[in-house]
Amino acid sequence: MFSMKTIYIGSDHAGFNTKKSIISFLEKQGIPFVDEGAYSKISCDYTFYANEVAREVLSNNSKGILICGTGIGMSIAANKIKGIRAALVHSPIEAKLSRSHNDANILVLSSRNSLSQNQKIIKVWLATKFSRAVRHKRRLEQLE
Amino acid sequence: MFSMKTIYIGSDHAGFNTKKSIISFLEKQGIPFVDEGAYSKISCDYTFYANEVAREVLSNNSKGILICGTGIGMSIAANKIKGIRAALVHSPIEAKLSRSHNDANILVLSSRNSLSQNQKIIKVWLATKFSRAVRHKRRLEQLE
Repeated sequence: MFSMKTIYIGSDHAGFNTKKSIISFLEKQGIPFVDEGAYSKISCDYTFYANEVAREVLSNNSKGILICGTGIGMSIAANKIKGIRAALVHSPIEAKLSRSHNDANILVLSSRNSLSQNQKIIKVWLATKFSRAVRHKRRLEQLE
Repeated sequence: MFSMKTIYIGSDHAGFNTKKSIISFLEKQGIPFVDEGAYSKISCDYTFYANEVAREVLSNNSKGILICGTGIGMSIAANKIKGIRAALVHSPIEAKLSRSHNDANILVLSSRNSLSQNQKIIKVWLATKFSRAVRHKRRLEQLE
């Protein structure tokens, strides 16, 4: 069901607890991951972790998950990086569309989502392939 | 209450009806705007309208609103542009935080939001100023 490439996961302090709960979920599902930090709830800059995860995603042609308070800071920061398509997702249908239409390589989550909501989103996101429809490919080529 | 600078608004075909309803709302509120298209529900590329709105926002030091099906495509495309901080927002609290913490200059909405939800989001978003807190300014400087 899942792509078994390593998932790179990162958060700021506001997303730290959510990251911890997602890591437990990935472990239970047997999905390989690397925790890129933050490693505590001490105030830190989302920009740093967005860069860390984006660099690993690009150099390993893999996928990433980023979490901050609203997901908005992470989404802005990650999308600034060439080659990254970061999707701020709140529901399984958005998870599906962000993969099939936007070929998103980073999933951004808000710390306000419940764990069960995040689990459903992550399952769908990892299981959905890019549609490769001509119109979607054309739009992705027009980015950057 | 509102910044009275002209708001630049754009959507793709999937966001066309939502854009129409937001335009009626802006008119009723007396908020000046320019409709950058799309002007019909014929299939088109979100990338084009993201670029159009971003260019106007940057050259007029103003704000923009972008709408597509999920808001994800618009959010990726707009954030690729230097100087743009595009926030995909689903609630008034996210609208507030995206202005006070992220100094977002483009508000991205999903066509799935209700009109009353969008009206509340837009009111809060236009009324909220950037906090200028040192930690938020530092993070914004780290973007791009």
